[in-house]
Amino acid sequence: MRYKLTVSYDGSMFNGYQKQSNQRTIQGEIEKAILLVCKEEVKVHASGRTDTGVHAKAQVLHFDTSLQISAKDMQNALNATLPDDIYVRLVNRVSSDFHSRYHAKGKEYQYLINFGEYNPLLRNYVLQYCRELNVEKMIEASKHLLGEHDFSAFTTNCVVENRVRRIDNIDIVVSNNSIIITIKGNGFLRYMVRCIVGTLIDVGRGRFEVDDVKDILDSKNRGDAGPSVDSCGLYLLSVLY
Amino acid sequence: MRYKLTVSYDGSMFNGYQKQSNQRTIQGEIEKAILLVCKEEVKVHASGRTDTGVHAKAQVLHFDTSLQISAKDMQNALNATLPDDIYVRLVNRVSSDFHSRYHAKGKEYQYLINFGEYNPLLRNYVLQYCRELNVEKMIEASKHLLGEHDFSAFTTNCVVENRVRRIDNIDIVVSNNSIIITIKGNGFLRYMVRCIVGTLIDVGRGRFEVDDVKDILDSKNRGDAGPSVDSCGLYLLSVLY
Repeated sequence: MRYKLTVSYDGSMFNGYQKQSNQRTIQGEIEKAILLVCKEEVKVHASGRTDTGVHAKAQVLHFDTSLQISAKDMQNALNATLPDDIYVRLVNRVSSDFHSRYHAKGKEYQYLINFGEYNPLLRNYVLQYCRELNVEKMIEASKHLLGEHDFSAFTTNCVVENRVRRIDNIDIVVSNNSIIITIKGNGFLRYMVRCIVGTLIDVGRGRFEVDDVKDILDSKNRGDAGPSVDSCGLYLLSVLY
Repeated sequence: MRYKLTVSYDGSMFNGYQKQSNQRTIQGEIEKAILLVCKEEVKVHASGRTDTGVHAKAQVLHFDTSLQISAKDMQNALNATLPDDIYVRLVNRVSSDFHSRYHAKGKEYQYLINFGEYNPLLRNYVLQYCRELNVEKMIEASKHLLGEHDFSAFTTNCVVENRVRRIDNIDIVVSNNSIIITIKGNGFLRYMVRCIVGTLIDVGRGRFEVDDVKDILDSKNRGDAGPSVDSCGLYLLSVLY
């Protein structure tokens, strides 16, 4: 029996998604909960990893177990067992050919920037930039990234050979001293969203001109782009199938 | 030289405001930062204590030191020294007859309730009630609490004799699956806001009728009121002078 889980989590107290010995990780905690509920050691498969500090509103995972219970019972049992910084929002019983990673057609990420006064309550949940940014220029610059490109300039420690990805949409809105950047694409390289946001911030603060972003993309050189911004402002919003 | 500080903090990782040996507290961290900045052991005076887990958007404190620097320099030096869950929003140099507690004319608190889906990202920042509440009845019931009353029924472990306080305003609004309760008054007894919110929730879920709140108030009996809700949803918004 294959179960698909849609989970939300607060990444701040985890050492990332992937299981590691002696580290508190999302995968580790979920597998521990499944062991308690299903009395079976299982491996959980996610749509992709999230790094240390990255949050998720709707990460998707799947696992197989011989325990046959209703989706609702599985959800309740897991939520009763999981720590309070992970929550199973939905369980579906799916056919055994569903795969959370191989079948993902795209993902949507959000990045939050506070450009107003430093707020200690948000220290794990937004990038506290606390200076003015030219959002109009950031919006213009983001248009260079739309479509299919080799994103080598926007990834760090990337182990895959093919770095061509398609970005379908970048939405940048300002609300209450926050900049909310939402990026949707068919897949993302390691640190790609954070490199893109760091580069757009460099446009917003005047280090780069709007059209420099096209040159950075064409250079395929990580050193030409802006820095990777902190993981705390990053949210995996949804996985598209 | 007397300095007045307006500070915000995330209460989740503190053992409350008041200094205690071997515990991480707001007062302890602020006094430690002042010692480093002013090279002097000082005692900080707050408008009042906040309990473990309670947050502040604008707590007010004062302290005396022989170090004479500008308000802005004091703010920057303290913020460079303080941990990232406390932030000094404003420093004023004040006359030596200003007192953060004795001169406070009132306070404003806010309490946040999430009645939608459980959100792990908000676990330290709102009460996750996750069930429907009749907000209209809560608003009606809150009107019984306005004005000057003996609030003995709405306090726990209260050590003061005079339990008469004046509530000037209770504002209850619904926004995005949240109920935001803002209470302004001339002073609050221990746990008073949390007892009031717990009682209003009991009205909202139908355990009490709207007019029961008047009887509870008149009873002066803590056992008649609702429970104290969790500290995580409580914010000290401002201190009025």
